[in-house]
Amino acid sequence: MKFRNFKTVPRIIFGRGAYNQLVDVVDEQRTSDDDFAVFIVDPSQRGKDTETRLPAREQDLILWADVGEEPKTTYVDALTDLVQRYRDGQLPVSVVGIGGGSVMDIAKAVSLMLTNPGGAARYQGWDLIENPAVHHVGVPTLSGTGAEASRTAVLTGPEKKLGLNSDYTVFDQVVLDPELIRDVPKNQWFYTGMDCYIHCVESLEGTYLNEFSKSYGEKAMELCRQVYLDDHPDKDDKLMMASWMGGMSIAYSQVGACHALSYGLSYVFGYRHGIGNCIAFNVLDEFYPEGVAEFREMVKKHDIDLPQNLSKNWSDEEIARMVQIAKGLAPLWDNVYGSGWEEKVTDELLTDLYRRM
Amino acid sequence: MKFRNFKTVPRIIFGRGAYNQLVDVVDEQRTSDDDFAVFIVDPSQRGKDTETRLPAREQDLILWADVGEEPKTTYVDALTDLVQRYRDGQLPVSVVGIGGGSVMDIAKAVSLMLTNPGGAARYQGWDLIENPAVHHVGVPTLSGTGAEASRTAVLTGPEKKLGLNSDYTVFDQVVLDPELIRDVPKNQWFYTGMDCYIHCVESLEGTYLNEFSKSYGEKAMELCRQVYLDDHPDKDDKLMMASWMGGMSIAYSQVGACHALSYGLSYVFGYRHGIGNCIAFNVLDEFYPEGVAEFREMVKKHDIDLPQNLSKNWSDEEIARMVQIAKGLAPLWDNVYGSGWEEKVTDELLTDLYRRM
Repeated sequence: MKFRNFKTVPRIIFGRGAYNQLVDVVDEQRTSDDDFAVFIVDPSQRGKDTETRLPAREQDLILWADVGEEPKTTYVDALTDLVQRYRDGQLPVSVVGIGGGSVMDIAKAVSLMLTNPGGAARYQGWDLIENPAVHHVGVPTLSGTGAEASRTAVLTGPEKKLGLNSDYTVFDQVVLDPELIRDVPKNQWFYTGMDCYIHCVESLEGTYLNEFSKSYGEKAMELCRQVYLDDHPDKDDKLMMASWMGGMSIAYSQVGACHALSYGLSYVFGYRHGIGNCIAFNVLDEFYPEGVAEFREMVKKHDIDLPQNLSKNWSDEEIARMVQIAKGLAPLWDNVYGSGWEEKVTDELLTDLYRRM
Repeated sequence: MKFRNFKTVPRIIFGRGAYNQLVDVVDEQRTSDDDFAVFIVDPSQRGKDTETRLPAREQDLILWADVGEEPKTTYVDALTDLVQRYRDGQLPVSVVGIGGGSVMDIAKAVSLMLTNPGGAARYQGWDLIENPAVHHVGVPTLSGTGAEASRTAVLTGPEKKLGLNSDYTVFDQVVLDPELIRDVPKNQWFYTGMDCYIHCVESLEGTYLNEFSKSYGEKAMELCRQVYLDDHPDKDDKLMMASWMGGMSIAYSQVGACHALSYGLSYVFGYRHGIGNCIAFNVLDEFYPEGVAEFREMVKKHDIDLPQNLSKNWSDEEIARMVQIAKGLAPLWDNVYGSGWEEKVTDELLTDLYRRM
């Protein structure tokens, strides 16, 4: 058996106010007055302190990302093209993504596509990237996805929703400033945080787990409880660490049944990843009884109006498409059941689960 | 306030049997048949499976480290000289340290001294290293020091015991194989593991702490409890993770009173770091009441014969020298007391503590 040689983010700045140090991070990459950096920023940060303090110089390119839907390969290609034409093909010294999981994934993908030709759809999969990316930095303004720590950039392509998974995808630097997640709207704060909680449940109960991923996953879960059940006074700091550790725990683990179903929801109906996970998790009592019970406690405590009875408006064809997508995620089901999962993950099982949503 | 831009180990292989993948790690660095790698190995591994499976090629240099005492700057200089003369100044492609904290620190220091002239003593301190090190790899066969994760290589020099602290000190790769710590003799297993437990107590109760270091430190401490109090069946895996996470927690924290006193013991009487910490911690009830109580529970459970009544053989002069060394470790006392520590850390206080050992 071979273990993954896990590539980590090699530089981390953590602290309240750490965002002020982003200027040093980018300046360290500049070598001449002709350089430029690219800042890809979540529109939720417009008019906020994050915009005012954005350390962009006059020659830099600021792109306000369109995050109305899950990031698409075509959108990444369009942004890459825009960056390439900005200075007639000159590469930026750094691509900085400031936002939630979508913006961070877009920044990762653009930094990769600047040095790997042919369009993002070509690289959806595992270890298909050939050349190192442009230096890229992640600055989360929303916590839970673990995108700041992961080796993937999840994109919806013409044929599938699948990440650019590679060692080159990993950020060269992250800046973790808990002050940046202070004002996230409640629903988004909840759904995105639950992405972390749910992937901890899936990985801790999965077959892939070892002690590295277990230690990280257990701590991430404990931090989620302090945030969503105990309403801890340091909850912004703790949620930011939960997301980081949840991302690290993926090293030797994998998500499971919930993420598989959620991918179907996103692909067919365009549900955002966080809310899609919550909709799916809520019908998985048989898979994760304790996790689902605790999740419902959190839903109740925060008075979240979780979408239900959705399936009555879904056609048989739509459900069949979601079933096919969910079923295709082999490593996730392997993590749930171990070898022989193919016999257990039937169309009937998945159809029944979707019908309960 | 500026936060440290924390440099982490960028590649980690964790798993039972991961040692078999060290060959891939080193081979990836080789570029021609003329290359050579250096393996610095703990003598405790002689005749063991670690030696049999050592992935050294014929042209490689294997150095069995002398770890009878804490590593000295003069020893590092001698080894560096030996490596430099091995192929008339040609640099190795990688320096691999296989052993406990001492061997890992020696490997780090040699990899730095190969590219930074003038001898190790010149670089004892913070950020004095000027050039990147030769590629270096850490393979712990003993867990607890956190040397596999840290940015220091602690050395005893002609004037002081102080580390080569720099971003370049951090390993390029670690291989964490819990099978390698299976057979550590009990006393060494205990004293080295307590290094981790004690530095968690010191950092969690210190003034420097933020949530990053707290999350890592808390989890490391919990893992120590599973190892030393619960006798967990996965205790090798858990101790290896405790040491890793304890090392990571140092990012935004600092050790405290125990390490300060222990440095004096090492410098004057040559006590190894692990046992020195235990001797010192045992008199620190007023500083860390809960931690010391739990530590004594662990001592009792494992029937450890902790050296006591040592001070009756110490001269006033020896004690005075230890007091001066302990007092000189400003950041440690700042972590204990915060600003104004100078008034609290008196010769009387420290003398009294040493007399209780």
